[in-house]
Amino acid sequence: MRISILNIGDELLIGQVVNTNASKMSQMLTQAGMAVGSVFTIGDNAEDIRNYLHHCLNVSDAVLITGGLGPTKDDITKKTLCDFFGSELYENEEALENVRRIVAAHGRELTDINRLQAWVPRCCTMINNVLGTAPCMWFETDDHPSKVVVSLPGVPFEMINLMETEIVPRLKKHFEVGAIVNKNILLQGIGESFLSDLIEPWELALPQNIRLAYLPQPGLMKLRLTARGNDSAKLQSQINEAVTGLYPLAGQYIAGEDAESLPELVARTMAASGRTLATAESCTGGSIASKLTALAGASEYFRGGVVAYSNEVKECALGVSHETLVRHGAVSEETVREMAAGVRVRLGADYAVATTGVAGPGGGTPEKPVGTVWIAVASAAGVTTELLHLTGRRAQIVERTCNAVFAALLRLANSGK
Amino acid sequence: MRISILNIGDELLIGQVVNTNASKMSQMLTQAGMAVGSVFTIGDNAEDIRNYLHHCLNVSDAVLITGGLGPTKDDITKKTLCDFFGSELYENEEALENVRRIVAAHGRELTDINRLQAWVPRCCTMINNVLGTAPCMWFETDDHPSKVVVSLPGVPFEMINLMETEIVPRLKKHFEVGAIVNKNILLQGIGESFLSDLIEPWELALPQNIRLAYLPQPGLMKLRLTARGNDSAKLQSQINEAVTGLYPLAGQYIAGEDAESLPELVARTMAASGRTLATAESCTGGSIASKLTALAGASEYFRGGVVAYSNEVKECALGVSHETLVRHGAVSEETVREMAAGVRVRLGADYAVATTGVAGPGGGTPEKPVGTVWIAVASAAGVTTELLHLTGRRAQIVERTCNAVFAALLRLANSGK
Repeated sequence: MRISILNIGDELLIGQVVNTNASKMSQMLTQAGMAVGSVFTIGDNAEDIRNYLHHCLNVSDAVLITGGLGPTKDDITKKTLCDFFGSELYENEEALENVRRIVAAHGRELTDINRLQAWVPRCCTMINNVLGTAPCMWFETDDHPSKVVVSLPGVPFEMINLMETEIVPRLKKHFEVGAIVNKNILLQGIGESFLSDLIEPWELALPQNIRLAYLPQPGLMKLRLTARGNDSAKLQSQINEAVTGLYPLAGQYIAGEDAESLPELVARTMAASGRTLATAESCTGGSIASKLTALAGASEYFRGGVVAYSNEVKECALGVSHETLVRHGAVSEETVREMAAGVRVRLGADYAVATTGVAGPGGGTPEKPVGTVWIAVASAAGVTTELLHLTGRRAQIVERTCNAVFAALLRLANSGK
Repeated sequence: MRISILNIGDELLIGQVVNTNASKMSQMLTQAGMAVGSVFTIGDNAEDIRNYLHHCLNVSDAVLITGGLGPTKDDITKKTLCDFFGSELYENEEALENVRRIVAAHGRELTDINRLQAWVPRCCTMINNVLGTAPCMWFETDDHPSKVVVSLPGVPFEMINLMETEIVPRLKKHFEVGAIVNKNILLQGIGESFLSDLIEPWELALPQNIRLAYLPQPGLMKLRLTARGNDSAKLQSQINEAVTGLYPLAGQYIAGEDAESLPELVARTMAASGRTLATAESCTGGSIASKLTALAGASEYFRGGVVAYSNEVKECALGVSHETLVRHGAVSEETVREMAAGVRVRLGADYAVATTGVAGPGGGTPEKPVGTVWIAVASAAGVTTELLHLTGRRAQIVERTCNAVFAALLRLANSGK
């Protein structure tokens, strides 16, 4: 089965908003065993909505629409869909109750404009959007087998919640999508082509019903195994067996399993061990701390960190010795070692990580060109350092450094030291 | 004139990569006075490329294509375009020279596969991509006036550089797009509907050739004025006059002009004054520091910061008194005040900012619900605090806090204190 996504909103066509909905929906659908054939982004324009909906229904089995469900005049998706399906709007009791509850939670009175949100076309199945006032709508065509059109709110967290709890399960049922089991494996410190050569024999020996995808990110390789069949339990054990076979070949690069990012693995590892962490960042400028604290619950293990951008801060806040900085420079093994050791003791954490390097575009020298980065991880057992030679622009160098640090920390924590 | 964007790449349809190219291109084209009518995202599939290119040429004057220009087998955009235009590939001398230079800069030998990158269709104008090995290609159709098809690399920084230096200027010339002048004004601390009421008389009095767009972001409102005409200098003075008229109405909310984000304004203000900054972050967890250091040159003014997630770190690294934390709690005016004052002195900076609050989803209490955030800005003249009651999820609360802090810092720095 093939799905089209239709994202509606003028704000998408002037570049004000990045269309993260398309990628998130594609990700969820792909992992549920459904393929996205194309994504269309159009403005809040009735003629375009009609034309592209027609087109999408011609080339796919289901069309997922986002956006244009607000209460203002320029939001016309609901009315246009109602006309498209030759239906009429009515006030849905359950939707109204939901609007009433949300408005009350904000301490406001229900207005006529709020109330309009509860009107939906008679021909659709209203699916309650518990996180927002715009109801989700499920339409089916008269084709045999019938095609599906779903209208979702454009607000990302409302859309994601509806997709997870309602739309993906309903689509799987409607289109009788078989069982599917996914498994993510995160690897660090190895490039795509080298990894691909390394694990080729393993990949060739995978069962026919298991597919492997390479999903590279800056400084991180995500491998996704997808098993299809009828019996989830059987697929799960097939996948587990496959993953076991990967370790002898690439185990040294594997940072963990069943996560979308390394900070997730860090959080899980720290929670399991009850240990705490502190950070000392120079070239990453707070990115390590902000990535860790972006996940709820970070306060359980993350004590804090120092962003030591200037040498004076490296000295006064981390205790790096003046002599070290003068003799070896800020970007040096000696400095990163003292940064990690210093922040660990000063912030009273079990583990510490540190970074110092040249993120560019300026600041490079022949001896330490842009991309030269020292990282360190520390525990009571001592400090381990690593020199990275990274390519890319400033943002990528920072991203790659963060991932190298997370991976080094995971290795240290998993070693029990 | 109307433009279609066609983003090609299987990685976009499985949700591995967020399509930031579409929004960046839309932004650049909109600001240059050209309108994007629709964006199509499709896989690396020759039939889809042909079909949607046909369709785009039917509904628009120009089609900008990204992606599918790599040297591997699944990248088929160049071959498909060559066939579409009934042309043949040849080795372009200038493109080959560029490939040779880039390969040499990476210390590698030129391979046959590298060399393939320099082959382009005879019927196109090759536009050199100085940042990468895939040349940009400019095609014109036989229509009168001729339509334009441009094939750009999918790597964001290569695409952006080509758009800026080559494609936008060429499109403006080809389609005789008139003069256009844009002006951004960043406002903070006011919502869209309240602002819209406040400045309505000003907006209604704007000259006919000036358009106003509201571009809200979490905790930040960007107003964009766009003037169209024939004479850039005249448009510039028209815009300046319009902006002058905005200050009496909304001046207290204006954080600055001519920037895309508040960190840009902070960097500019700090550079102009030669002053330095330090940060003390609790609920923002390093986001303030990482947003400031994401811009090259931050080391000129940013001394560093402390991410004080735990109370112990607030005490030991910032000097917040134990009594303050016990009596008033971590989320309190007293704590944020001591955090800002402490980090300013300890890190030896002219200015300091601090945050402490409940970012959620957990940690809220009836007295201090999720979204309760204290911020502070400090200088030699003293510390100013502000209490925020923010809505949204964790990421939005952090984002809104950052913008409130940047705006408060700009107010302080601009006041000369």
